[in-house]
Amino acid sequence: MTTHINKLAIFGVGLIGGSVALALKQAAAVGEVVGVGRSRANLEAALKLGIIDRIAASPATAVQGADVVLLAVPVGQMAVLMQAIAPHLGEETLITDAGSTKQDVAALMQQHLAAHLPNCVPGHPIAGAETCGAGAARADLYQDRNVVLTPLPQSDQAAMEKVRALWQACGAKVSEMPSIEHDAIFATVSHLPHLLAYTLVDMIARRDNADTLFSFAASGFRDFTRIAASSPEMWRDIALANREALLSEIAQYQASLEQMRAALAAEDATALEAAFRRAQTARVRWSGG
Amino acid sequence: MTTHINKLAIFGVGLIGGSVALALKQAAAVGEVVGVGRSRANLEAALKLGIIDRIAASPATAVQGADVVLLAVPVGQMAVLMQAIAPHLGEETLITDAGSTKQDVAALMQQHLAAHLPNCVPGHPIAGAETCGAGAARADLYQDRNVVLTPLPQSDQAAMEKVRALWQACGAKVSEMPSIEHDAIFATVSHLPHLLAYTLVDMIARRDNADTLFSFAASGFRDFTRIAASSPEMWRDIALANREALLSEIAQYQASLEQMRAALAAEDATALEAAFRRAQTARVRWSGG
Repeated sequence: MTTHINKLAIFGVGLIGGSVALALKQAAAVGEVVGVGRSRANLEAALKLGIIDRIAASPATAVQGADVVLLAVPVGQMAVLMQAIAPHLGEETLITDAGSTKQDVAALMQQHLAAHLPNCVPGHPIAGAETCGAGAARADLYQDRNVVLTPLPQSDQAAMEKVRALWQACGAKVSEMPSIEHDAIFATVSHLPHLLAYTLVDMIARRDNADTLFSFAASGFRDFTRIAASSPEMWRDIALANREALLSEIAQYQASLEQMRAALAAEDATALEAAFRRAQTARVRWSGG
Repeated sequence: MTTHINKLAIFGVGLIGGSVALALKQAAAVGEVVGVGRSRANLEAALKLGIIDRIAASPATAVQGADVVLLAVPVGQMAVLMQAIAPHLGEETLITDAGSTKQDVAALMQQHLAAHLPNCVPGHPIAGAETCGAGAARADLYQDRNVVLTPLPQSDQAAMEKVRALWQACGAKVSEMPSIEHDAIFATVSHLPHLLAYTLVDMIARRDNADTLFSFAASGFRDFTRIAASSPEMWRDIALANREALLSEIAQYQASLEQMRAALAAEDATALEAAFRRAQTARVRWSGG
C-alpha cells in the first residue's frame, strides 16, 4: 500500500518525530512537513537538516490544512497540545502519536479530541535510543521495526489504514492490538527492564565506593545498564502512565527474584542451573529469530 | 616490564585461555604453549589455529618443565586438576588461574597446592563474552582490560611480578586486591546483573504468551538481557562460589527495588525522577570515563 501526505504537522521534532519526517521524505510519501516544539534551537536545527520544511508559528497554524498530525512529544505534554489544536483540526485531518504508553493517550484523546475520535489513531513505534533531539533523527530508524497501533473504539477503519500506510512507508512492520494489551506487553519487555536497570545503577551510585565499583564494571554491566542512561523525565512519565501494569510486573519480578535468592541461599545448584538454562535457551532462541 | 615464558601450560584452551596464548605469542613473550582440556576436538582446533603448539598427553606431562601453568577452566574443575598436577610441579613453576571468583580458588590452592603456595597467584581477567571455545580466542581480548590479582598470604613477590608481567604482555591493566574485596566488587558489578538478567528472561520465558512478549522486545531488552545468554553451568558455579557476597547484594537490590516499587505505588513522581536521574547521571559519567 502506498500513501501520500500533502501536509504533515509534527509536534516534537526529536529522534522519533524527526525520523518519521526523514523516512517519509526518503520514500517521497510527503509534501510539506511543518514542525512545532518547545525548543526554538532544535526546530532551527531540524530546518537546517532538512527534516522539516517550515517552523509553524503556532499549534493552530501547524494543523491547518494538515492531512496528518503526529504528536511525538512526551505524554505529559499531550493534554495541553490536544487542547490547543482541537478547535483548528479539519474534518479530514488524522491525529496519531508515538507515545510509549497507550491507555493514557487514548483517554486523553477521548477527553480533548472528542469531536475527532474517528480520525484519532494512537500508535507506538518500537524504536528509540538514549539519544534525543533533531540531530539524532535518521531516515532508517523504523526500517523493519515494529509499530503497534491501538485503535480507539471510535477509530475509523480508513484512518487506521492511512496511519498504517504512513508507518509502512517508513519501513516499519505494523500490528494492531487493544491498548490494554499493548500496555501489559510493554510493561514486561520495556518498562520493567528500564526500572530494574535504573534501580541497579542508582544503588551502586549511592555507595561510598561507587567509583571503585564502576572502575571494575565491564561489558556485561555496560549493556545491562545502557537503558539507565535514558531520559529520567520520560521514564518517570511512562512509569506513572502505565503504573498498574508496571506494578504488577514488578511484583512478579520480586517473586521470581526471591525464588532465585532462595535457591542460592539453599545452595540448590539444580534449581539455579535450571533457571539459568531456561533463560539462556529462550534468550539464544530469541536473538536468533 | 618485559617477560619471557619458555613453556606455558594452559588448562582449558577456550576464549580465556586461548586468548592468553595468542596475546603472548603476538608479543613474542612465550616459547612453547601446551594445551590440556576435556574436549579433544577443541584442542585440535586450538592446534590448527596456532593457539597451542602441542596437546599434552596428560596433566603431569603438561606441567613438567613449565614456567607458568594457567588454569583457565571453570572453578568446579580446578580441585581435580590441582590434585593431578601437584606432584609434578617444578620448584620454579608459577601457578595462576583466570577464575571469576577468588576466595574459592585461594582456598583450593591452600588445600591442594600446599607445597607450592609461594608460586601461586590467583587472578581474574575482566574480559569475556557469551562465546566460548578455542575458535572464539583473539590476541586482543585483554587489550586495555582490567586484570585483578588476589595474592595469597604466601604468594612470593617475584611470582606476583611475573604474573603481572604476563598480563601486561597481553595488553592488560593489572591491579591487586584481597580476594574478599574482589569477590564483593564483582558480586555487585557482575554476578548480580547476571542473576537479574537470568531472572527476567526466565520469568518471561515461562509465561503462556512468551512468544508474543519476545516478538515486541526491542534493543533495550536485547542489551539488558545479553548476559542471560551466558553459560548456565559457569554462572551456577560462580553464584555458588560467591554465594555470601551475592546473597548480600541480592538483599540490597531487593530493598532498592522495593523502594522504587513503593514510590511508583504512591505515585511519587519526585522520588521516581530523582532515582532515575541519579542513575542516569552516574551511567552517563561512567560511560564517558
